[in-house]
Amino acid sequence: MLPTSINTVEVYSGANGILKKVKKGSLLIDSSTIDPAVSKELSKEVEKMGAVFMDAPVSGGVGAARSGNLTFMVGGVEDEFAAAQELLGCMGANVVYCGAVGTGQAAKICNNMLLAISMIGTAEAMNLGIRLGLDPKLLAKILNMSSGRCWSSDTYNPVPGVMDGVPSANNYEGGFGATLMAKDLGLAQDSATSTKSPVLLGSLAHQIYRMMCAKGYSKKDFSAVFQFLREEETF
Amino acid sequence: MLPTSINTVEVYSGANGILKKVKKGSLLIDSSTIDPAVSKELSKEVEKMGAVFMDAPVSGGVGAARSGNLTFMVGGVEDEFAAAQELLGCMGANVVYCGAVGTGQAAKICNNMLLAISMIGTAEAMNLGIRLGLDPKLLAKILNMSSGRCWSSDTYNPVPGVMDGVPSANNYEGGFGATLMAKDLGLAQDSATSTKSPVLLGSLAHQIYRMMCAKGYSKKDFSAVFQFLREEETF
Amino acid sequence: MLPTSINTVEVYSGANGILKKVKKGSLLIDSSTIDPAVSKELSKEVEKMGAVFMDAPVSGGVGAARSGNLTFMVGGVEDEFAAAQELLGCMGANVVYCGAVGTGQAAKICNNMLLAISMIGTAEAMNLGIRLGLDPKLLAKILNMSSGRCWSSDTYNPVPGVMDGVPSANNYEGGFGATLMAKDLGLAQDSATSTKSPVLLGSLAHQIYRMMCAKGYSKKDFSAVFQFLREEETF
Amino acid sequence: MLPTSINTVEVYSGANGILKKVKKGSLLIDSSTIDPAVSKELSKEVEKMGAVFMDAPVSGGVGAARSGNLTFMVGGVEDEFAAAQELLGCMGANVVYCGAVGTGQAAKICNNMLLAISMIGTAEAMNLGIRLGLDPKLLAKILNMSSGRCWSSDTYNPVPGVMDGVPSANNYEGGFGATLMAKDLGLAQDSATSTKSPVLLGSLAHQIYRMMCAKGYSKKDFSAVFQFLREEETF
Repeated sequence: MLPTSINTVEVYSGANGILKKVKKGSLLIDSSTIDPAVSKELSKEVEKMGAVFMDAPVSGGVGAARSGNLTFMVGGVEDEFAAAQELLGCMGANVVYCGAVGTGQAAKICNNMLLAISMIGTAEAMNLGIRLGLDPKLLAKILNMSSGRCWSSDTYNPVPGVMDGVPSANNYEGGFGATLMAKDLGLAQDSATSTKSPVLLGSLAHQIYRMMCAKGYSKKDFSAVFQFLREEETF
Repeated sequence: MLPTSINTVEVYSGANGILKKVKKGSLLIDSSTIDPAVSKELSKEVEKMGAVFMDAPVSGGVGAARSGNLTFMVGGVEDEFAAAQELLGCMGANVVYCGAVGTGQAAKICNNMLLAISMIGTAEAMNLGIRLGLDPKLLAKILNMSSGRCWSSDTYNPVPGVMDGVPSANNYEGGFGATLMAKDLGLAQDSATSTKSPVLLGSLAHQIYRMMCAKGYSKKDFSAVFQFLREEETF
Repeated sequence: MLPTSINTVEVYSGANGILKKVKKGSLLIDSSTIDPAVSKELSKEVEKMGAVFMDAPVSGGVGAARSGNLTFMVGGVEDEFAAAQELLGCMGANVVYCGAVGTGQAAKICNNMLLAISMIGTAEAMNLGIRLGLDPKLLAKILNMSSGRCWSSDTYNPVPGVMDGVPSANNYEGGFGATLMAKDLGLAQDSATSTKSPVLLGSLAHQIYRMMCAKGYSKKDFSAVFQFLREEETF
Repeated sequence: MLPTSINTVEVYSGANGILKKVKKGSLLIDSSTIDPAVSKELSKEVEKMGAVFMDAPVSGGVGAARSGNLTFMVGGVEDEFAAAQELLGCMGANVVYCGAVGTGQAAKICNNMLLAISMIGTAEAMNLGIRLGLDPKLLAKILNMSSGRCWSSDTYNPVPGVMDGVPSANNYEGGFGATLMAKDLGLAQDSATSTKSPVLLGSLAHQIYRMMCAKGYSKKDFSAVFQFLREEETF
């Protein structure tokens, strides 16, 4: 599980890369979140060596990793999925077959783009409600029993004091860093541009996380966007 | 439950308005979604007549109304809430006390702003994923077991063929009209401007629904934003 | 020339307001930038007193005011325009008749919305170009001889070192404050919402200036958006 | 002058590409608008053949091309610029040396991103003003003598009836196609993502042109965004 496409290519195709010595019949599973196009290229090179490549990025963040509740999104040859599932099942609660190589990345990218959008939306809605005189805990409760409900509001609320055991309860330490979210949104943007898919909110979410990283939030959890948007506050 | 602030003011303060004949001690409950400031003004006028005013907008849409599962968000004097709860409980599954007059509207506006943002986000993510080769039902399943999960993805999915019994399964007929969403987003925008709250995604969502209404979607359910964003399609 | 609609209403309709003592036949010219709807209301009250009201907001900023090069945008009865022109001509280089009362405000609001958009656009383009290896002065020169040319690039460039005698050459002191721009964009947003006009970039520009004001730029010139967007910098 | 990076690479590096037979000392000038990174790669390959490569994209559109008033933005070794200038001067009124290979592309990309932003901004401002009761020609005149002035408002106004001899006067035929603008904005987006430059309005402009192309405007001039934003109209 490596941070960028470049690192992954290096580990496979580099001077001392896996491709130099991989044994025939090996199953290679990459859980990095990278450009789907890169996963496809690596898969071809691995095939030439008589081995099998699958992309299997994860969702759930550090908390889910600790508790073994990660979701693995797997792309690759269907016949080999059973083998991957057996291994990944030891680390994650959900192992989902997404389709051909690259579709694991596609699923991850789409999930995280929607996650970023709903997190920023939750931060905007909570901030507006507080300014209109609502109690944060009460507003969260209302959203969570209504159509505004989302993972960011009911499981990972970004407003300090609303929930325990989440980054917002710990000065936004730990969790999923704003820098990583900005990176995933960059991948989503690239995929959207190459497929000519309109992503109006996705593009703006990307820009908002870019700015956050530039304003001292790069090390903070991505839910710190609430802090970033609060006007009175300065971090 | 009236469509706009203007209608509500007319019904209360007009020539033959409620305020002309209301009896002392009456409990007046307004379930319109209007500007919180207007609710506060009406409340003062009602008080002068010795009656009680509460704002109690609803969430859940036509489906929830039919099944009696609406959520009422109530703003008003706390001592009178029990009486309102008894009445509203007959029509809704959840009757929530939000605080002083106007906070019911505030809660509704915040919920719908977040709803619009997550619906557009769901539409963008589903559309992008489909173009990247994912099966719509599978992608919805993945999002719903991951951090991208939201009411728009797991209860009201905007992609035809993913769920039954929702507007997207019926050519976006019925449900909550795009025009009404554009109206609520206008109220959210006004409240955000007057409280100087940043609502970057909320503002853009407002503009997207404005454009949708202008492009022939005004009568369609607000989940038709998926259709609006699909590039190949023309409605 | 007053800061907000509230101040203007107070000066005209307040306890010691102009309307209390205005002489018949007086010509009252308001150069505040306010909601066009308020200008229209004041005009009616003034008419009742037998006087004449015109809205005449200005464009050009402090520099133009000092040098007598302001542009006055005048709304009111056409027959009275000659009289207003004679007076305003002493303070401004351009005195333009825009139409009925309120159209002066409309013209001002539209100009400033476009100004904010082109200023942010100039800041984004200059920042991107600098990061791609271009010399700021050279890039400005190229934009100004090309189709990207605008007042913000050729007369009021936001990048320090490109031009002399502008706020960017003086740590963004003086000029037209970010707070005032945020206020005018709020007026544009209100007018767009009430007329159902799509203003996608205008809405986002509004939100960007809101955030700037919250991040310590409220006292700076609005061209400081370049500084705000530069990632390495912290103000 | 080729449409995409792919075409350009094919023409140089393809089976029958220029690189196969180029003579030592040749001067190769590419006026395509492509990714600056591709220009740099091609330059290296050309150098290996003992020839010289320069990127020289143009600005000004079809009109400027016809009248010989194009602006060429040239990137390459400074010593060779004089030779390029002599040739390009026959086709353009301005030939500007921008710096090392790739900076010509950078300048072009930055100009067109700002152009798209100011064109959409002009369309939004003109549309809002018209709805507020202003005459289009008068509003354009006011903007052009004020701080909202830009090339899109004073030279290429997008509102039919305001100017002659521009696409808006000819049902948006000819000129610079919306598809080409969407492509250039995609290049700007890619460069911004790779350099981590915030381009909030640039990203949204990109998305707006993507949607326009999907709604039947792909063949129209990019100033047709005015038509696209007018709510009453359907193209």
